[in-house]
Amino acid sequence: MTELFASLDTPCVLVDLDRVEVNLKRAQAHADKEGYALRPHTKTHKLPRFARRAEELGATGITVQKLGEAEIMADSGLKDIFLPYNIVGPLKLARLKALNTRVSLSVTADSPDTVAGYAATFTPDAPLTVLIECDTGAGRCGVQGPAQVLALARQIIGAPGLRFGGLMTYPPLHNFSKSCAWLRDAVDLLGDAGIAVQRVSSGNSPDMWDANEAPVTERRPGTYIYFDRFQVQEKVASFDDCALTVLATVVSRPTSTRIVIDAGSKTLSSDLMGMSGHGLVVGTDYLVKALSEEHGVIEMPEASDWPHVGDRIRILPNHACVVSNLFDEIVLVSGDKVLERVVVASRGRVD
Amino acid sequence: MTELFASLDTPCVLVDLDRVEVNLKRAQAHADKEGYALRPHTKTHKLPRFARRAEELGATGITVQKLGEAEIMADSGLKDIFLPYNIVGPLKLARLKALNTRVSLSVTADSPDTVAGYAATFTPDAPLTVLIECDTGAGRCGVQGPAQVLALARQIIGAPGLRFGGLMTYPPLHNFSKSCAWLRDAVDLLGDAGIAVQRVSSGNSPDMWDANEAPVTERRPGTYIYFDRFQVQEKVASFDDCALTVLATVVSRPTSTRIVIDAGSKTLSSDLMGMSGHGLVVGTDYLVKALSEEHGVIEMPEASDWPHVGDRIRILPNHACVVSNLFDEIVLVSGDKVLERVVVASRGRVD
Repeated sequence: MTELFASLDTPCVLVDLDRVEVNLKRAQAHADKEGYALRPHTKTHKLPRFARRAEELGATGITVQKLGEAEIMADSGLKDIFLPYNIVGPLKLARLKALNTRVSLSVTADSPDTVAGYAATFTPDAPLTVLIECDTGAGRCGVQGPAQVLALARQIIGAPGLRFGGLMTYPPLHNFSKSCAWLRDAVDLLGDAGIAVQRVSSGNSPDMWDANEAPVTERRPGTYIYFDRFQVQEKVASFDDCALTVLATVVSRPTSTRIVIDAGSKTLSSDLMGMSGHGLVVGTDYLVKALSEEHGVIEMPEASDWPHVGDRIRILPNHACVVSNLFDEIVLVSGDKVLERVVVASRGRVD
Repeated sequence: MTELFASLDTPCVLVDLDRVEVNLKRAQAHADKEGYALRPHTKTHKLPRFARRAEELGATGITVQKLGEAEIMADSGLKDIFLPYNIVGPLKLARLKALNTRVSLSVTADSPDTVAGYAATFTPDAPLTVLIECDTGAGRCGVQGPAQVLALARQIIGAPGLRFGGLMTYPPLHNFSKSCAWLRDAVDLLGDAGIAVQRVSSGNSPDMWDANEAPVTERRPGTYIYFDRFQVQEKVASFDDCALTVLATVVSRPTSTRIVIDAGSKTLSSDLMGMSGHGLVVGTDYLVKALSEEHGVIEMPEASDWPHVGDRIRILPNHACVVSNLFDEIVLVSGDKVLERVVVASRGRVD
């Protein structure tokens, strides 16, 4: 018997291109049907080729989460980039200014300090588009209510080098409607003040199949290109939709129930996403129970000869995005066939 | 007021060289006093320069955890490398064979299958040194008892291309004595069979200040070069001993108690190590309460003006080793002075 993917050393990341295509197309069809602009978050894959492919299928542009990722995507020819982040400090503002001359760029702000930084950096000849980040319940960044939205919109509109770009939120999980209600209040208040809101951008993959609601005009799911164990748990996808798996080798069978593989937290990350276990052994219901950096430990409920030392197994990780960030390259496959190795261009762009 | 480390963009990893020196010397002094060979684990820093520095101070050689790390260290001139891992499969065995001609190399095995792979690969002209990995309670890899040790030692000794190198364990946390008792039983059984054991290698940083015990001849702590929040919790080090911190910028102050920084799980990892929180704000008792990939959220117990958007703070991570693996380079500092940027040579060597 030929070993699974014998030409590949392990651990490595397999991405099934057929599943990627299906996932991209299904999301675009949903966006088309529901009438919102799809702006996929590229942090999941960090690959310019998949960013371009989504645009070919109808995406309005892309999303990145760090300035360094935006720079890589711009270098690779992507032209419409949303960076929903507060860009702060002279070093980053200088980089942002340079980038803004190369691509159609938009960013966010959630404080007068952040807007002041943008206002002091940009000029009317190459204005920066700024959306206001709204905390609609997720408890991360974002202004806390419509009155703050209005104040910040006035500050942006009053700055000659800035363009008011609309509103952005990272919605609380499974509360898309609640988030939309928050945003409607803000849009209404802005409307009363004579400020039009043309773009309202929301996440995310767990809520991607929800019908669209006003005032959202754009959505930024990311994980849907690969899906993962968390998305399956959230009933966004089935196991068969998951495109990214980790190929690992069994390096030890210390007991009749314990399997140790060569994929640890350096491969799978230690993201639990509120679940138990660090990943699922594909084709079984065995979980990776414990991780150290270079080992994954699986405990089977009953003694078993299978698998042997040297056997290869595939792991569905809890969280696909963080796995992409741990590998210099991924391997594109179609079923059991290896297609191509691809460098993860914006891996490790932490700033 | 000049902002902290104004020349550096954030997030970035600061490593205080003065503290590194103190930590390296203190560990070597302990090894010298207790009479064991120190073989530092380089997975913590992944930097050939610190591997060399430890050897200059008296270390007997180095430890790595993946074959790819061993290759990088060999490329950088390190000559005595211990890879305490089961190396399995034709691709890795070919790489191991090539490496074994370049450096003084030793590896481990915990199964007849792994030994058979080594035996089929190596020849008497360039034999491979193989230690037997023993599960003395940590529940990861390793043979389960002395009888298995004896059987595996016989298999190694019977293979013309292999040298029996002794025993290795990754001891259960704070059970060094229990682990030593296990190993003594194994050494005694081997002795009864006429097999001498010259080297017995144990971890780890949490137990590094324990007095040495027979039969251990060598210890492989790693994290002690930097220490981290976990090591402080384990009372192995003080906060002032910690050499690695993450410099982060406050990007949002959504509420009077919430701080959001530009360091998330892509920077700090999501390793909890059984603790609550994802890192400590240096100089405070505030914890990073929640992480997403690019954001860290800190909740202060009381409303505070400090810090402002744009301020920089330093975070002591839970686990230093995994942070090293997330950065292409670290910044050497001395107190508040920037010394040099250093590429993390063996970052991302997952296989």
